[in-house]
Amino acid sequence: MDKGQSMGGQIAHGQIDFLPDLPDEGVREQVKARWDGVAKPLDGLGRFETLIAQIGAVTGSAHIDIHKKAVLVMCADNGIVEEGVSQSGQEVTALVAESMGRGQSSVCRMAKWIGADVLPVDVGICRADPIPGVIDKKVAAGTENFLKRPAMTEAQALQAVGAGMEMAAFCKKQGYGLIATGEMGIGNTTTSSAMAAAMTGCAVEEITGRGAGLDDSGLSRKRQVIARALELYGLNQGAPGSLQSVREETFRILCCVGGLDIAALAGVFLGAAKVHLPVVIDGVISAVAALAAERLTPGVRAYMLPSHKSREPAANRILQELGLEPVLDAHMALGEGTGAVMFMGMLDMAMTLYDSPTTFSDISVEQYQRY
Amino acid sequence: MDKGQSMGGQIAHGQIDFLPDLPDEGVREQVKARWDGVAKPLDGLGRFETLIAQIGAVTGSAHIDIHKKAVLVMCADNGIVEEGVSQSGQEVTALVAESMGRGQSSVCRMAKWIGADVLPVDVGICRADPIPGVIDKKVAAGTENFLKRPAMTEAQALQAVGAGMEMAAFCKKQGYGLIATGEMGIGNTTTSSAMAAAMTGCAVEEITGRGAGLDDSGLSRKRQVIARALELYGLNQGAPGSLQSVREETFRILCCVGGLDIAALAGVFLGAAKVHLPVVIDGVISAVAALAAERLTPGVRAYMLPSHKSREPAANRILQELGLEPVLDAHMALGEGTGAVMFMGMLDMAMTLYDSPTTFSDISVEQYQRY
Repeated sequence: MDKGQSMGGQIAHGQIDFLPDLPDEGVREQVKARWDGVAKPLDGLGRFETLIAQIGAVTGSAHIDIHKKAVLVMCADNGIVEEGVSQSGQEVTALVAESMGRGQSSVCRMAKWIGADVLPVDVGICRADPIPGVIDKKVAAGTENFLKRPAMTEAQALQAVGAGMEMAAFCKKQGYGLIATGEMGIGNTTTSSAMAAAMTGCAVEEITGRGAGLDDSGLSRKRQVIARALELYGLNQGAPGSLQSVREETFRILCCVGGLDIAALAGVFLGAAKVHLPVVIDGVISAVAALAAERLTPGVRAYMLPSHKSREPAANRILQELGLEPVLDAHMALGEGTGAVMFMGMLDMAMTLYDSPTTFSDISVEQYQRY
Repeated sequence: MDKGQSMGGQIAHGQIDFLPDLPDEGVREQVKARWDGVAKPLDGLGRFETLIAQIGAVTGSAHIDIHKKAVLVMCADNGIVEEGVSQSGQEVTALVAESMGRGQSSVCRMAKWIGADVLPVDVGICRADPIPGVIDKKVAAGTENFLKRPAMTEAQALQAVGAGMEMAAFCKKQGYGLIATGEMGIGNTTTSSAMAAAMTGCAVEEITGRGAGLDDSGLSRKRQVIARALELYGLNQGAPGSLQSVREETFRILCCVGGLDIAALAGVFLGAAKVHLPVVIDGVISAVAALAAERLTPGVRAYMLPSHKSREPAANRILQELGLEPVLDAHMALGEGTGAVMFMGMLDMAMTLYDSPTTFSDISVEQYQRY
């Protein structure tokens, strides 16, 4: 019996095979028209006006409410860490998850400032005991070292994807109007870079960064590890053609060199699209999961909002592939969803003008004409 | 008697001729070291760590306190509006300033969200009566049409610069830890673009944008107006050499084609440096004022923090000239200081990790090594 089936059959391959609803272009126009009535220069809030219009279009309503927000932080360990691809040991994942469970990690402090909830989820931490304050959706105690065998079985990957989809549906049910992705998992810039190289065909050197702080020899080792894995599994051979073959190849990449956090995050993107919940992409790990989700189920990208350009080189390449351009470029590489929280704070500020606007008629001025 | 002297002699040419204190590099290192102790990847907050270190260096203390923040919004009218360079009439400046005085304009709503105060200042609105809630530092009821005569007299420009310096000193005295620049003045992307062309030598076509929403013929008219003015006053002839000649030429550019808002904002930058108060640059008008301030008094740029890349083409050219790279690029062009407020909100979020950090020792993890 595989682990996927052991979960009571919630997860089936068919779950990722759906046709996402298209955004409502009529609502998008309504939101834009409302922005034009706010007493400010046309398009004065620039990309923020477009992003708020996108939220309207995917939720199907110009009455936008993103007051209640959550960051879903998928936590998992990666077997590849035993190859020396990180400055930290694997135990750090659990320690930071504990800190997150207490509301004390970096993303918690930032999220508190904007009034967002942090929902840490254990999908694969290397610790047997449950962690207080962390939602238990553990699939396995970390992945395999992918230089020895595939990181996950197909069943494990599907179970993690399913966990992410469940979390998105849970958030919708709880009344969240906007969610963001985050992660914690030592070694996950290695898994992300490997997936990025395999999914885009980009050179490993170009796409692999220093993660949380590798020195030159560590970076070189990380690149070698990724290159060997791509070779081992015959990945990075150029994108296959048909929808079905793209989907199968993406899923194979995820299982071979991915992580449980990435799989769960892909599930969050899929689940968010299914329940019409806009979802913010954080850094490189989230971006890789976002691209995987779009390759698995084309059309889900309409529900994604990019937040920032990470310092990790793979992130920007992946966002380009998704056709998404973030507004924030601060060379951040903290993880946990912190870049997404920064961005959500800015959306909140933009919403102060949309929620209860001062209109041109309020100040007895003629509205600007759009040429 | 000129207007500058009529103000009781606070403003003298000598006031802009000072040597700004250099940032304290020791404090900058202390702030960086503190960041490295926070439980997160090294440099995880990227540019925000550098920016917070800059605030420490210019205030001379690693105990950074930016809780109390203000946006200084300089409001003034521009005689050049009679040449048809704007979609709005001049009366809109006073109407928006009124809205600001009531706390209802765009910047007020956004600033309220982050707990910042908005201090609107009338340095040249075309209205005789004082506007409730707006600080009265009026120099003149708008500037002259600079196609007919210079926008301001030297005395008026100095008085406006002095008003800005006074406002910065006032903020320091009131306990503000961070201030931002903002403006309101129909026609002020024309004055800014003219100054930008004159100060950088860039082509008018390259540097002039649509402001609050000009159509093609309006944009073409705006460019012609600027080009004629540069010709008329013999500006845009390439940068002169010596410090004194740069200062004199900058001041002449300000008087010929600038505005009272720009002069006052330049004063804010000068005054902020004088009292060791970090100051955030908003969009194109603020950026032009910032470059003017640096040309008048070299070294004041150390006290400036860039916030966003405006949609107006001159803004980025000017920030490059100042060697400043903003973290936010959202094609905003709202004015009033709104981009600066967005940025201050992000600084606040970054500060949540600096103020009461969870350190590596708190979570029993070894600190990352810096290689």
